[in-house]
Amino acid sequence: MKIEKQIEKKEKGAAAGHKYKNFPMVPKVIFGRGSFMQLGEILLPKRRNSDAPFIFLVDDFFHGKDLEQQIPWLFNDQIIFISAEEEPKTAQVDALVAKIKSDFDELPSGVVGIGGGTLLDLAKAVAIMLTNKGSSEQYQGWDLVANRAVYHVGVPTISGTGAEVSRTAVLSGPDKKLGINSDYTTYDQVVLDPNLLKTVPKEQWFYTGMDCFIHCIESLTGTYLNAFSQSYGEKALDLCKEVFLENLSEEESEEKLMMASWHGGMSIAYSQVGVAHAMSYGLSYLLGVKHGIGNCLVFEHLGEFYPKGVALFRKMKAKHGISLPKGICANLSEEDFNIMISVSLSMDALWENALGTNWREKINAEKLKEIYSKI
Amino acid sequence: MKIEKQIEKKEKGAAAGHKYKNFPMVPKVIFGRGSFMQLGEILLPKRRNSDAPFIFLVDDFFHGKDLEQQIPWLFNDQIIFISAEEEPKTAQVDALVAKIKSDFDELPSGVVGIGGGTLLDLAKAVAIMLTNKGSSEQYQGWDLVANRAVYHVGVPTISGTGAEVSRTAVLSGPDKKLGINSDYTTYDQVVLDPNLLKTVPKEQWFYTGMDCFIHCIESLTGTYLNAFSQSYGEKALDLCKEVFLENLSEEESEEKLMMASWHGGMSIAYSQVGVAHAMSYGLSYLLGVKHGIGNCLVFEHLGEFYPKGVALFRKMKAKHGISLPKGICANLSEEDFNIMISVSLSMDALWENALGTNWREKINAEKLKEIYSKI
Repeated sequence: MKIEKQIEKKEKGAAAGHKYKNFPMVPKVIFGRGSFMQLGEILLPKRRNSDAPFIFLVDDFFHGKDLEQQIPWLFNDQIIFISAEEEPKTAQVDALVAKIKSDFDELPSGVVGIGGGTLLDLAKAVAIMLTNKGSSEQYQGWDLVANRAVYHVGVPTISGTGAEVSRTAVLSGPDKKLGINSDYTTYDQVVLDPNLLKTVPKEQWFYTGMDCFIHCIESLTGTYLNAFSQSYGEKALDLCKEVFLENLSEEESEEKLMMASWHGGMSIAYSQVGVAHAMSYGLSYLLGVKHGIGNCLVFEHLGEFYPKGVALFRKMKAKHGISLPKGICANLSEEDFNIMISVSLSMDALWENALGTNWREKINAEKLKEIYSKI
Repeated sequence: MKIEKQIEKKEKGAAAGHKYKNFPMVPKVIFGRGSFMQLGEILLPKRRNSDAPFIFLVDDFFHGKDLEQQIPWLFNDQIIFISAEEEPKTAQVDALVAKIKSDFDELPSGVVGIGGGTLLDLAKAVAIMLTNKGSSEQYQGWDLVANRAVYHVGVPTISGTGAEVSRTAVLSGPDKKLGINSDYTTYDQVVLDPNLLKTVPKEQWFYTGMDCFIHCIESLTGTYLNAFSQSYGEKALDLCKEVFLENLSEEESEEKLMMASWHGGMSIAYSQVGVAHAMSYGLSYLLGVKHGIGNCLVFEHLGEFYPKGVALFRKMKAKHGISLPKGICANLSEEDFNIMISVSLSMDALWENALGTNWREKINAEKLKEIYSKI
């Protein structure tokens, strides 16, 4: 089980202060209601020629909806609709790249991802694999990508994951769930159009927003934090509180959640997640639980580690009438629990960030089983 | 008098919602105490060959100080010390570029600016003029730069102006003070090392920090603001309050002011400054008053426009025992006042942002003279 092992090493180096990460930011961003309508003119100067298409990877939720009509395709561009029901996989990335390569003689001018974290991570990975040999699973880890990706653009239609701004594309491979974490992963351009959030189903809106909220709680209370990440994390947290606890107009709420996700994603630069993510990875690995809801399921029972954060989370849940599924772990075998526990405990960096260098004295398999049993 | 005319047009377009700016962010940033020691390895892959030097433009305050020894020069690199006593000028940029071109056969591999807003703006402008023909004054305005600048790196040693992250290089030319505002202006790399702030003289620290604070007050209360800029501006303002009103450790204070400047600079993307900047430009133009202190001199008398902001400013000033010079405008002639007033009133965008589209009904020459007379 090699989950996040490479991340861990790198994070420790940074935390120890020996050497700092030189962090890539998205070099171009446009924000505004209706800014999606400017995508066509943004792509135009990036078109190498009329045979080098743009590939639009779009959440199939939008198939037949208004947004489909607004996609600025030209020439032989391709729109590929993809389900976000499951988290993105290395095999899926490899299949998409093979299809694109067989459909076109020329390397695409670029890739545009339109959707939530799943689509945004897929598009990043496809852009990388169009210029790098072999299978995407070879590149899961830190700085393993040799060649610059093709130009790629991210257009979030749901907010919270921070995938639009992060330098990773998290993929599930045959033997690990781990990001392709490289300077070439980060988008070249992001389009932040709050109008695109209007269609998000309420529960999905809540779970994805909570991904941002929980990440902020974990990083802001963690031991790895520095002032750079703190300032972004604090702003993201403030915005989450406004969105989920105050009575904003729909427009304000969309805009502020979009910015919460943006700043939350930036706060990752010099911080790390903690107990909720470590345990939610176990749930995902064994049961395929999706990331947003997985974090919520775990976080509810982490009052011991994050008392203020969990109290706020309960308030938010109540205010929006969200009830989480229960009994997820009710019928699991001893072996099942052991798998989840071992996945979770393998993420040293997350535990060290949450509990300090002596985290092994503070947490153990028994304690994790007790928490998992409540879910 | 063409001051900021081009900015104005562009801003109005954005404010009217017709079209949004596609904003460039610094694509690489490193943050951490001692991160300046990593500059050498950051520059290494950017060196085209040993004859293509890096040019380090450094505030002459550091001549003979520790920092000079830490500059990672190699081969035929050049370190040029420059006084920040006066604000940067187009003639100065042109002279620097001429010198560099005559000293080297090859185009430099890059330019590194080390200092405050003056040095950072100079370095941006020099990087642009190494690849663009004619005089820098031809490029003052919006999107007039034809060719990509040489690779350029910003290293702030004082915080508040936001020059390290903005897409402008403000220069005084023969007939206007205006920024070279283009996508090529933004730094390719920024090094944020809070250790470099240790040497800032206290008054300079305060005035430059207030540049950030006042800018935030102006943009957050302005009519041009959107949620993107609001989130950055709010965070910058929160950080300014912590730095100037709370009792932070020296280290925390340095780090938080560095981040306040960073976020304050980002908040410019979709916002505009207001009354203080409009009036302080008049002071600068007539009397050569520097930007930071000029803003403070004006802002103190703007309680009518920014009641909460001015109250906070007075608290900050008192807490740090800062007393502003008085009688600056005591002996000015009627003609002098008219020059300042006309410079100030020519900045339509700033006034419109501050007071709305009908700003001409709310402000006039008489009112401005009354305020200037108090300074």
